[in-house]
Amino acid sequence: MTKEPVPTAQGLERLVEALRVLPGVGPKSAQRMAYQLLQRDRAGADQLAVSLRHALDTVRHCAKCNNFTEGELCSLCESSRRDSTLLCIVETPADLAMVEQTSSYSGMYFVLMGRLSPLDGVGPRDIGLDRLLARATDGEVQEVILATNFTNEGEATAHYIAEMLRSRGIRVSRIARGVPLGGELEYVDAGTLSQALMERRAL
Amino acid sequence: MTKEPVPTAQGLERLVEALRVLPGVGPKSAQRMAYQLLQRDRAGADQLAVSLRHALDTVRHCAKCNNFTEGELCSLCESSRRDSTLLCIVETPADLAMVEQTSSYSGMYFVLMGRLSPLDGVGPRDIGLDRLLARATDGEVQEVILATNFTNEGEATAHYIAEMLRSRGIRVSRIARGVPLGGELEYVDAGTLSQALMERRAL
Repeated sequence: MTKEPVPTAQGLERLVEALRVLPGVGPKSAQRMAYQLLQRDRAGADQLAVSLRHALDTVRHCAKCNNFTEGELCSLCESSRRDSTLLCIVETPADLAMVEQTSSYSGMYFVLMGRLSPLDGVGPRDIGLDRLLARATDGEVQEVILATNFTNEGEATAHYIAEMLRSRGIRVSRIARGVPLGGELEYVDAGTLSQALMERRAL
Repeated sequence: MTKEPVPTAQGLERLVEALRVLPGVGPKSAQRMAYQLLQRDRAGADQLAVSLRHALDTVRHCAKCNNFTEGELCSLCESSRRDSTLLCIVETPADLAMVEQTSSYSGMYFVLMGRLSPLDGVGPRDIGLDRLLARATDGEVQEVILATNFTNEGEATAHYIAEMLRSRGIRVSRIARGVPLGGELEYVDAGTLSQALMERRAL
């Protein structure tokens, strides 16, 4: 019996390896993706290469709110129609978009681009808390609204930021927690209901 | 209340759109991937852009077996130590690698880079069956071994190829179907066991 090494194209192998940088992509999916890109959709693959290069060259962080932008400041921070006394802290640009969609907030933002997560090695500096502190103490901001997720990490991040800012005399608030709109008590989890009871409001 | 469009970076949007070319990636995952690439791993993103471009420029199909390669022929087709009377048909390069790993096959291959799938618009020409026919009738090949998957589509593909080749007088075989090595009858599905009974061999 003859025996040869399994034939491979080096460029293909490098692509499979490179695709593993994507979140949630293991060796098998990376291989499937590489086949798809090279076999079924070379035009799409070309577009991906161009877009990725373009994004790396042009997309940076807004000097004020830390969101992704292509200029020095994002359009929201440049706007003169926002209330600059309010600063809302969110974890991601997607969260910022969700708050904007409510049409019920007209202040400024600070995007952490993550959350505190000691187990993953994400500390205060990694989510720009030094820059947040500078931003929150610039004299204009009068209230910081914490809108991080109600996950363990989001809560810990909110707690850390609240401590940091309160010790500098800045007013800090947290978005409300409770039974969601349209929520039926029968189907709400016990933790949420328990919080809703504890944080009940006088009518 | 003031109202602004949600601020976005155009390069970011284009990247999110371009990432959707990847199999199984919807709008939410594409956004998560883009954030990951631009925020957490710019070096990895750069490597991905370079690898993708390089692969698009260098990786092509072996003129003989249709596998990915960087030269005119892949190393396996160029080898003089393979049995050129046997031609094994597989769906993907990953399947070829699996067959090679068994160390029990020393013939040549033809990689379909897919399978017949009329519902997805994949017909005989899309998986190179015209080239396979030319390859199988080149005078050297004496037996074609069908090693497509035992899925509906893989079976249909095997059936189609078998018909096509048999009508030209070429010997065609199919890899065996049955209870897997180490398989316990109690845990094998009824379809497999039924096949194993029907295709029992005399000892």
